[in-house]
Amino acid sequence: MAALAPPSTAAALVIGNELLSGKVEEANVHVLARTLRGLGVELRRVVIILDDVDEIAREVAALSKSHDWVFTSGGVGPTHDDVTVMGVAKAFGVAAVEEPRLAKMLRDHYKERCTEGHLRMALVPEGATLESSDEIRWPTIRFENVWLMPGVPEIFRMKLPVVVGRIGSGTSYVSRAVFTKMDEGDLKPLLDAIVARFPDVGVGSYPKWQDPTYRTKLTFDGRDPARVDEARDAFVALLPEGEPQRTE
Amino acid sequence: MAALAPPSTAAALVIGNELLSGKVEEANVHVLARTLRGLGVELRRVVIILDDVDEIAREVAALSKSHDWVFTSGGVGPTHDDVTVMGVAKAFGVAAVEEPRLAKMLRDHYKERCTEGHLRMALVPEGATLESSDEIRWPTIRFENVWLMPGVPEIFRMKLPVVVGRIGSGTSYVSRAVFTKMDEGDLKPLLDAIVARFPDVGVGSYPKWQDPTYRTKLTFDGRDPARVDEARDAFVALLPEGEPQRTE
Repeated sequence: MAALAPPSTAAALVIGNELLSGKVEEANVHVLARTLRGLGVELRRVVIILDDVDEIAREVAALSKSHDWVFTSGGVGPTHDDVTVMGVAKAFGVAAVEEPRLAKMLRDHYKERCTEGHLRMALVPEGATLESSDEIRWPTIRFENVWLMPGVPEIFRMKLPVVVGRIGSGTSYVSRAVFTKMDEGDLKPLLDAIVARFPDVGVGSYPKWQDPTYRTKLTFDGRDPARVDEARDAFVALLPEGEPQRTE
Repeated sequence: MAALAPPSTAAALVIGNELLSGKVEEANVHVLARTLRGLGVELRRVVIILDDVDEIAREVAALSKSHDWVFTSGGVGPTHDDVTVMGVAKAFGVAAVEEPRLAKMLRDHYKERCTEGHLRMALVPEGATLESSDEIRWPTIRFENVWLMPGVPEIFRMKLPVVVGRIGSGTSYVSRAVFTKMDEGDLKPLLDAIVARFPDVGVGSYPKWQDPTYRTKLTFDGRDPARVDEARDAFVALLPEGEPQRTE
């Protein structure tokens, strides 16, 4: 078995009354999860909370201590319900201050229309870093291990490549799948045998509701491709005749 | 201003490695949020975690103390990664025991094919209640204020009417919206005035990315329809000529 360093870990803090009231459907966690997975970073926890400075501060303080990276989503606009910068500043015990480079970019963009409201988007936790790239020039605010990402899904996606350029543990995950018409109750003893034999491979079982081609999808995940293949093949060898329906 | 009792509160605990690895996109929080909103119940927090008994136990213990209702989603099948019943039992310091009525239903359903694996789905935290209705006969496990909902989206939705029949504070939320071509920076002072004047109305501001018909959607939410309408109308009265684009 190859000796791999443990993966980096991450948490996401998603901020927005509109998500918890059901007015807007959350759309950033899935793309963040897939992106981190591709970087070999393990997303271990997602918390969705209201637009509340103290709650943001509490969560950021806790999550940034227990994970290598934290990504906040939402609350970075100029209105009264945009309090993420204040929350992150409070989590680290620093002030929220106007960042000169951001203020200049806002003034250049809005020109004579630039108001105090617009300039509120130049506030950062004091000591923050501005992350950008040649392709994505509008900066993303990062404070220590906390990235302040926007909530608007299109902008969240536009900014992800900057994150990808900065983090990643170098060893991505691989994933294999087996599709069967057996149900989970019958599969349980076979899966238990594989889980015991391959502690370094994540084994998942997902029943499909009313699909004519299979009933249960089994997944095998890890960062060592040889071990993942071995676990999947060992599982397939335990299946009765006529199974599996297909493998990936 | 009508004196309304404070709303009931709820939290959701979503369990599943597949969601955090990005293999599967979470699909139950939004429908739960909308359903609770319709019942006048305030969803205040969502946490997504891995399939881990101790972490489930910790979260359930904390969330069930700080909210009127908790809804878990996922981890109620028969395989090694289905550990929600164990986690809830541990949170309350009780054992996981076979529930005779569930065991009989499983035996009747699977008949001679019924295995130990299938019967694992008859385990409940000792002292749990089985919730069902005339229309939805397969029971949902509830332990005190914690509902154990399935992760499969189609089954989650099928079971929601049982929840609706049991909880709800009687006074639903109403929501109004105003669409404008103004940007958030310009809207900020107008919104601040409304937020100060209507502390009992939730005011939200949502920029839309590249929509030709409007740039920002403002929302006004509360449980007193008269106050919500008053807040929206007061906001509209502050807008310049030519605005709003439309109201709802």
